[in-house]
Amino acid sequence: MIATKGYAAQNPTAQLQPFNFNRREVGPHDVRIEIAFCGVCHSDLHQVRDEWGGSIYPMVPGHEIVGRISKVGSAVTKFKAGDLAGVGCFVDSCRVCESCRMGNEQYCEAGMAGTYNGYEMDKKTPTYGGYSNCIVVDENYTLRISEKLPLAAVAPLLCAGITTYSPLRHWKVGAGQRVAVVGLGGLGHMAVKFAVSFGASVTVLSSSPGKEADAKKLGAHHFVNTRDKIASKQVRKSFDFILDTVSAQHDLNFYLSLLKTDGTMVMVGIPPQAEPVDAFSLIGKRKTLAGSMIGGIRETQEMLDYCAENKIVSDIELIPIQQIEQAYQRMAKGDVRYRFVIDMATL
Amino acid sequence: MIATKGYAAQNPTAQLQPFNFNRREVGPHDVRIEIAFCGVCHSDLHQVRDEWGGSIYPMVPGHEIVGRISKVGSAVTKFKAGDLAGVGCFVDSCRVCESCRMGNEQYCEAGMAGTYNGYEMDKKTPTYGGYSNCIVVDENYTLRISEKLPLAAVAPLLCAGITTYSPLRHWKVGAGQRVAVVGLGGLGHMAVKFAVSFGASVTVLSSSPGKEADAKKLGAHHFVNTRDKIASKQVRKSFDFILDTVSAQHDLNFYLSLLKTDGTMVMVGIPPQAEPVDAFSLIGKRKTLAGSMIGGIRETQEMLDYCAENKIVSDIELIPIQQIEQAYQRMAKGDVRYRFVIDMATL
Repeated sequence: MIATKGYAAQNPTAQLQPFNFNRREVGPHDVRIEIAFCGVCHSDLHQVRDEWGGSIYPMVPGHEIVGRISKVGSAVTKFKAGDLAGVGCFVDSCRVCESCRMGNEQYCEAGMAGTYNGYEMDKKTPTYGGYSNCIVVDENYTLRISEKLPLAAVAPLLCAGITTYSPLRHWKVGAGQRVAVVGLGGLGHMAVKFAVSFGASVTVLSSSPGKEADAKKLGAHHFVNTRDKIASKQVRKSFDFILDTVSAQHDLNFYLSLLKTDGTMVMVGIPPQAEPVDAFSLIGKRKTLAGSMIGGIRETQEMLDYCAENKIVSDIELIPIQQIEQAYQRMAKGDVRYRFVIDMATL
Repeated sequence: MIATKGYAAQNPTAQLQPFNFNRREVGPHDVRIEIAFCGVCHSDLHQVRDEWGGSIYPMVPGHEIVGRISKVGSAVTKFKAGDLAGVGCFVDSCRVCESCRMGNEQYCEAGMAGTYNGYEMDKKTPTYGGYSNCIVVDENYTLRISEKLPLAAVAPLLCAGITTYSPLRHWKVGAGQRVAVVGLGGLGHMAVKFAVSFGASVTVLSSSPGKEADAKKLGAHHFVNTRDKIASKQVRKSFDFILDTVSAQHDLNFYLSLLKTDGTMVMVGIPPQAEPVDAFSLIGKRKTLAGSMIGGIRETQEMLDYCAENKIVSDIELIPIQQIEQAYQRMAKGDVRYRFVIDMATL
């Protein structure tokens, strides 16, 4: 076994503390990654605090992992020691169901093995995430990372990046389309960068007028303060596609009213309570409300390659692991532009 | 003006009574149809009783109209006197917006002119529907009807038919797909006929176990009583497409759970209250919830031609106009298999 150092929560109310645990030895198909940086996703906080239920303790959070490979198993063909590599939200899946065969491992019928707060596919061995000094992962669930980009700012691509890239690609967002991004946080700021890069006309919809300058800096062409009734009315029936990144309660019917006929709104955030949907909000103009969850391995690699080619990374604030609780407090208030990333050298 | 006889409601609580009114003279682009039969749609009752608000009285309901043309205007090219013809849910639209130009007049940006309980495009002249002896309509909003089918049973195709045909075609439902139809009423029974005809494997989902025999008679391959928890569990994650025809309150999250990954559920009924949608019901497997409203003129003609070729009509119960109130009472209880059609000769 590999003695590993990390930070863990022991229960839903405890602060994260140093934690020693074991990882499996590097098997024939595995790579061992020395973790350099790990992004802090809002879902880390939800799961640490058991806000979604069913949390498994001790919990070592973190699923936006980048680092350098130190060892590869005897059968590994895709990586060699010294390569940069990344791990996202899952470390395995059944590999045989229709979703897995189509490269949509995130929708695996047997349930993917989450990178943390989950179990390996044996459904017994707990998984521990990236708030740690190393991780051992099957090469087929490991991503290639370019040397071209600032590594710390690549980490959030593994979750915030693919979560927004995947629906924009799946629903073929591009030039000639008017796209709105709801919410300008970790997910929203990546959505703006991608949608702009794909050639769409991009509007940020936010209830914080203070974010307008940032939205424009990120490349957005327009900004609408959703508390401004006149400005909101001016964009009614105007968008082909809306990417809704908000996980607080919010009025879906209002946003649906901003879609054109045949428009699509995709949710990637999960509000705590179900949101009421008026049937007429959809029926009146044949509108679509859909959801999307992260992305498969093939698409995540495509996204990382696209980012390397187009110099797209996350806007981050680098923190030492010792400041994780302060980071959680600020993240809970939306006070981060736009992603905390832990420098694992501080462990 | 053309003196016209019909049946009208004078207010939301009054019974329908004989009513004399005038229709416009046949203009250069108009046809005059002697109405033979008019279907009774559930929305007739909602609007007569002002259950959706904004009803206009006196109201002559009816938007499932078939009959024979008695006169055509000087510029009419598509019809001649003696032709069978039909009129559906609208009699005009702006003709210049993107939706109209694409043949989706039902989504006209200026608002289509409803066949009744609406106004002509001047937004002043009230429209009167098919519970009457004749109607004058622009030829471009008039449908050709085949002589091959029993005419009374064709009437409901103009609303119940196109409302179900359009989403099945738009979302490309066909062979190799597992399709569920929720609710076996006027819309649902047409949805079953079309989905079966398009080659899909069709399951009827209904809370009335007594409808199983009828579902099978209509061509459905399977029937699931949604009150049977074991049977319902067996069809979880099994459908590519669900057409939801129910306009009573019902749990959308339950039906979404029956979709496969990347599955789509389309609502064509409008429950009185907004229905709560769990974001995870959509996000977990990239599912889609959409809405669809009737269909455009081109697609309605395509549907009518398809029905003539494939011998598809509605199952109907023919009534004299004098029994309209009893028909409404039975329809409100779901006691009709599957559409009342008024024999206008009884007027």
